[in-house]
Amino acid sequence: MIEQQIKAAIRDIPDFPKPGIVFKDITTILKDHALCESIVNAFIERLGNKQIDAVAGIESRGFLFGLTLANQLGVPFVPIRKAGKLPYSVKQKKYDLEYGSAVIEMHTDAFEPGAHILLHDDLLATGGTVMAASELIHDMGGHVCGFTFIVELGFLGGREKIVPVSDEVIALAVY
Amino acid sequence: MIEQQIKAAIRDIPDFPKPGIVFKDITTILKDHALCESIVNAFIERLGNKQIDAVAGIESRGFLFGLTLANQLGVPFVPIRKAGKLPYSVKQKKYDLEYGSAVIEMHTDAFEPGAHILLHDDLLATGGTVMAASELIHDMGGHVCGFTFIVELGFLGGREKIVPVSDEVIALAVY
Repeated sequence: MIEQQIKAAIRDIPDFPKPGIVFKDITTILKDHALCESIVNAFIERLGNKQIDAVAGIESRGFLFGLTLANQLGVPFVPIRKAGKLPYSVKQKKYDLEYGSAVIEMHTDAFEPGAHILLHDDLLATGGTVMAASELIHDMGGHVCGFTFIVELGFLGGREKIVPVSDEVIALAVY
Repeated sequence: MIEQQIKAAIRDIPDFPKPGIVFKDITTILKDHALCESIVNAFIERLGNKQIDAVAGIESRGFLFGLTLANQLGVPFVPIRKAGKLPYSVKQKKYDLEYGSAVIEMHTDAFEPGAHILLHDDLLATGGTVMAASELIHDMGGHVCGFTFIVELGFLGGREKIVPVSDEVIALAVY
């Protein structure tokens, strides 16, 4: 039911960001506040009574539902940002992109060692960014207890990459 | 009361992003879910029964509380993003920075002409970005009905710049 609602709300953008790619535009979901609330409720329902000490969200679109999810779970929100954006002392993780590389950062005091961290982003594609975020959390002594995504592009194989980290992979709408 | 709570939670980072600047780090607010909820509730209380048709939030930190605020007001959320990030047809606004310039974008179907838009960002500094966002909303036929910020750096004079657009400037903690 939530899957159909999400798929009905998402807009396909052909040839973005480059020719041959059909981009899933989630900004049309953001126009529907009732659907936004249903998305957060669906995450919470599927998470059940799993131990979660903090929700980490990946800049920028992971900030949207990440904070709401953390607030409703009653736990801290940890922003994972692009290099140079976080002002306090940080730990970095560099990862490969199709062309070149990128760096993400987290504050070194983002959570206590041993904390159970739920990792959130809007969309699971190849899993490159979210794997880098997982490794960053691991390097800082945290335990990734699960992943939440609104959308999963199943044909890109991201799930196979992240399942070894945690088999709690929640994606509300799978293509 | 909320002002004291916010000021107690914020962390001062000297010499970020460059020497002589004391950066107000709001990531420490995000660790406190009760404070996050109080912030959204304070915005809603101060907005009273003002007509708001959508909340626009400025990438990236304006995405954090912007979506929650929109959801709780029961209205759409409109993301204002850096150039090249929004996939559908966009309208742009270029604005000057201390060194160089920047471009922000909004989807052309973000709202209906005449809509009352509440503009949200985490922090009001010189007001450059938020003025560019206001002009972008105006160019698209929208009416900026107010501004919400968690923090205002009053000594930088941003308020004087934006008050001509709307005198509904809500800043919960003013330095």
